[in-house]
Amino acid sequence: MKYEVLVEVRLHDDIADPAGATVERALPALGFAGVEGVRVGKAVRFKVEAPGPEDALLRAEEVANRLLANPVIESAGVRLLGLLEAPS
Amino acid sequence: MKYEVLVEVRLHDDIADPAGATVERALPALGFAGVEGVRVGKAVRFKVEAPGPEDALLRAEEVANRLLANPVIESAGVRLLGLLEAPS
Repeated sequence: MKYEVLVEVRLHDDIADPAGATVERALPALGFAGVEGVRVGKAVRFKVEAPGPEDALLRAEEVANRLLANPVIESAGVRLLGLLEAPS
Repeated sequence: MKYEVLVEVRLHDDIADPAGATVERALPALGFAGVEGVRVGKAVRFKVEAPGPEDALLRAEEVANRLLANPVIESAGVRLLGLLEAPS
């Protein structure tokens, strides 16, 4: 069965985030008050073939931790978005 | 009240994604079969001050569409992650 997953890769809280700081500084000039703590990370979507939802999540977590995130500065979170194809 | 939101900025389906293609090509060499359709986007988290959850979402969508996404090649989706602080 094929599942769609979303991996969010984000910087650890104690790592500086210049992209997020730049966004935050730009907001007041655009008329947005009350927005803070902006952190910019990566959102990676993919489809994974697995026998069930738990296996799909495990496989996606392995991909996230071995290929997508740099564990020294980042952590990865995985969300299962849905079942795309069941076997006919 | 303060809410935490997550904005996912992703490339339209018909826009080429070289970063996603590179990840996809690297997977078989690392022993991952059955992963396809990799698309790399941005994940932006922030805290927004709003009177209620609907307003927090609306405000986050405006930030996403006016500052974070380039509508020519990207679309933005917003998720409310939770309430951080209620007034005492």
